[in-house]
Amino acid sequence: MINASACGVIEMARSHPERIGKVYAAEDGLFGLLREDLFDTSREDPLQIAALRYTPGGAFGSSRYTLPRPEVAPAVWQRVAAVLRAYDIGYVFINGGNGSMDACLLLNRLGEVAGWPVLAVGVPKTIDNDLAGTDCSPGFGSAAKYLATSIREVGLDVRAMAETTKVFILEVMGRHTGWLTMACGLAAESPDDAPHLLLLPEVPFDEARFLARVKETTARVGYCVVAVSEGLRTAEGGFYAEQEKSEIYGFEQLGGVGPRIAELVRRKLGLKCHCAVADYLQRAARHIASRTDVEQAYAVGRAAVGLALSGQGGVMPGIVRVSDEPYVWRIDAVPLDGVAEIEKHPPHGFIREDGFGISEAARRYLSPLIVGEDYPPFAANGLPQFAQLAYHRVVKQLPPFEATASA
Amino acid sequence: MINASACGVIEMARSHPERIGKVYAAEDGLFGLLREDLFDTSREDPLQIAALRYTPGGAFGSSRYTLPRPEVAPAVWQRVAAVLRAYDIGYVFINGGNGSMDACLLLNRLGEVAGWPVLAVGVPKTIDNDLAGTDCSPGFGSAAKYLATSIREVGLDVRAMAETTKVFILEVMGRHTGWLTMACGLAAESPDDAPHLLLLPEVPFDEARFLARVKETTARVGYCVVAVSEGLRTAEGGFYAEQEKSEIYGFEQLGGVGPRIAELVRRKLGLKCHCAVADYLQRAARHIASRTDVEQAYAVGRAAVGLALSGQGGVMPGIVRVSDEPYVWRIDAVPLDGVAEIEKHPPHGFIREDGFGISEAARRYLSPLIVGEDYPPFAANGLPQFAQLAYHRVVKQLPPFEATASA
Repeated sequence: MINASACGVIEMARSHPERIGKVYAAEDGLFGLLREDLFDTSREDPLQIAALRYTPGGAFGSSRYTLPRPEVAPAVWQRVAAVLRAYDIGYVFINGGNGSMDACLLLNRLGEVAGWPVLAVGVPKTIDNDLAGTDCSPGFGSAAKYLATSIREVGLDVRAMAETTKVFILEVMGRHTGWLTMACGLAAESPDDAPHLLLLPEVPFDEARFLARVKETTARVGYCVVAVSEGLRTAEGGFYAEQEKSEIYGFEQLGGVGPRIAELVRRKLGLKCHCAVADYLQRAARHIASRTDVEQAYAVGRAAVGLALSGQGGVMPGIVRVSDEPYVWRIDAVPLDGVAEIEKHPPHGFIREDGFGISEAARRYLSPLIVGEDYPPFAANGLPQFAQLAYHRVVKQLPPFEATASA
Repeated sequence: MINASACGVIEMARSHPERIGKVYAAEDGLFGLLREDLFDTSREDPLQIAALRYTPGGAFGSSRYTLPRPEVAPAVWQRVAAVLRAYDIGYVFINGGNGSMDACLLLNRLGEVAGWPVLAVGVPKTIDNDLAGTDCSPGFGSAAKYLATSIREVGLDVRAMAETTKVFILEVMGRHTGWLTMACGLAAESPDDAPHLLLLPEVPFDEARFLARVKETTARVGYCVVAVSEGLRTAEGGFYAEQEKSEIYGFEQLGGVGPRIAELVRRKLGLKCHCAVADYLQRAARHIASRTDVEQAYAVGRAAVGLALSGQGGVMPGIVRVSDEPYVWRIDAVPLDGVAEIEKHPPHGFIREDGFGISEAARRYLSPLIVGEDYPPFAANGLPQFAQLAYHRVVKQLPPFEATASA
């Protein structure tokens, strides 16, 4: 949904030519800003900008660059000011999660620190949904829809195979919070529906209890479908996937938590077990996006420009839930000093009593976020057609600047 | 597509009440036939039968049961005859790949062997596409579309992440043939598009050559996306994923070929590498089915009934390609004695000269098979809605019979 928000930003900016001349896109986020690697989006075809709404990935790249505090690295701040000054840039929009919102809050002080005042506005997104200050984060709803749809589909496949394959494990992203794994739970509308068990990072993993539940489920239902978070933790608090030597295996093991759980089931229960690792597939699966999510991603992009035009910086447009059913939401300006670096965990009441599923409260929260489909166009050759930008690079005006992730 | 073919069989049978009374579905394939675990589909709502067309999995279960030759296990053959006689069943349809076609060919001899003549007709399906006698197998086109779409999407994600993640590996099914991995290649319409490298079971894996190409690709394109077949083989002919001890790792390792290749890239090239294992996701992903595939799956189901009604047994409806562009196909009766137990490999000319991609000939063959979309209905809650059968079991008339996979 990064591109859907970019589409919102660019289209909103283009609709205000009296206030905004050009939108420059920095290549690879803050790296591009420091290196003067900028694209002039004003030269892009409006149809291709519109196509960003349904294009996965991030058309201008991304970075994990951590903006240093001004007192630590004044040269970095002088450089940012120099680049923004060179292109007469007064508004900066940063799309991302917690780290990006922190950078945004910092950048809003550029005038005071380095003499070139800007309004820096955040544009929230993270499939992990762990960003504070917003009811949900763009990107999450589509990943959630992909996961809930896929696990419902795969559950039917495993059911058909249950004469041989008894257990299926899906490894889901979310290193610190269980939001995405919880979304899998939406597919189970009655107790015997897949997924039968969720393994959440919020619930310390108890092998014996888990294995007993797998055994009981295969006996009752005939098969067992499990969604496990990559962030699953042991009772001691470490990541389950990072145990160097497992008592079960007796030797070092590579691979993530999904294959480990699958091996545990095979060895301890003797059941045939399949395992899928969704990894980036769940993040990139634009073909099964949530329409609600796409609308919100686009809306926060537009709203971010609106906030800047109204003179607000150091804020982000946050999604406010007005009601669950019917699902009504609006956008409010949220000050970033209450947001940056806070990890939003699911409330305790979202986890089912036994720890292996979601509660009704979680279902009420999650359900509206996956509503609606928003298929990308497919060409006559059967493949999805995404935005084809021209990428007009600016001619650099400043001396080169070395930017590294450790800066 | 198993269910789409079942839909074709049942709907065609229902349209011939003068010839066919009821269609019984055996639970878990031949197991259900032996155990008298039969569902009376005539009592199912036509709307739910129609919904089978877009429902993943196999609504009546499946088995890997190998039908023994009559001279080896005459009791099994007497049992099959007894069950079919009890329900006055004269036509048997078996949906599957090579093994199922072999069973079908055998069963066609039931009259001569056990005194109850039947016409046994095969209904081809396998996502692996390795069934002979048909230009393509139902199920393959949809898995191919899922893979080509997903790897195009994920390629855009990796491109955006290329400042940190340089390499992405997708593990693809197909233990003996590279058809599915080849389908990933459709997403690359120009040389720098993802996927950049395919690792096919038909090309013995050469670590050094592969690593050199990854290095060269990341240098040229900025990142590298690889699709690898679970059936990748070493120069010695064994499965790469089954090497007990690898020289690279120095210790035993669990997990499939994808995680191994990822680890190889990390250790030898020092590049950050992500890996997804699609496993059953690629087989169950009805939400991104190929319309061409759905039409063919349904058509072979109908045609199988047509063959039986015209008195033909020991055959299957095979898909015949009339032309690539425009893609024109028809269905012909194919004798199963030329089909069963033959594994159809991609022609050598389908592999690109360097061994890491597909040729233009492969593209011409594969491309029509993924054309068209055929989305399942999604409910107001954002989840796909699949067939809900009532599963009316027959009341058993015969004594119990023990059927095991080793019979």
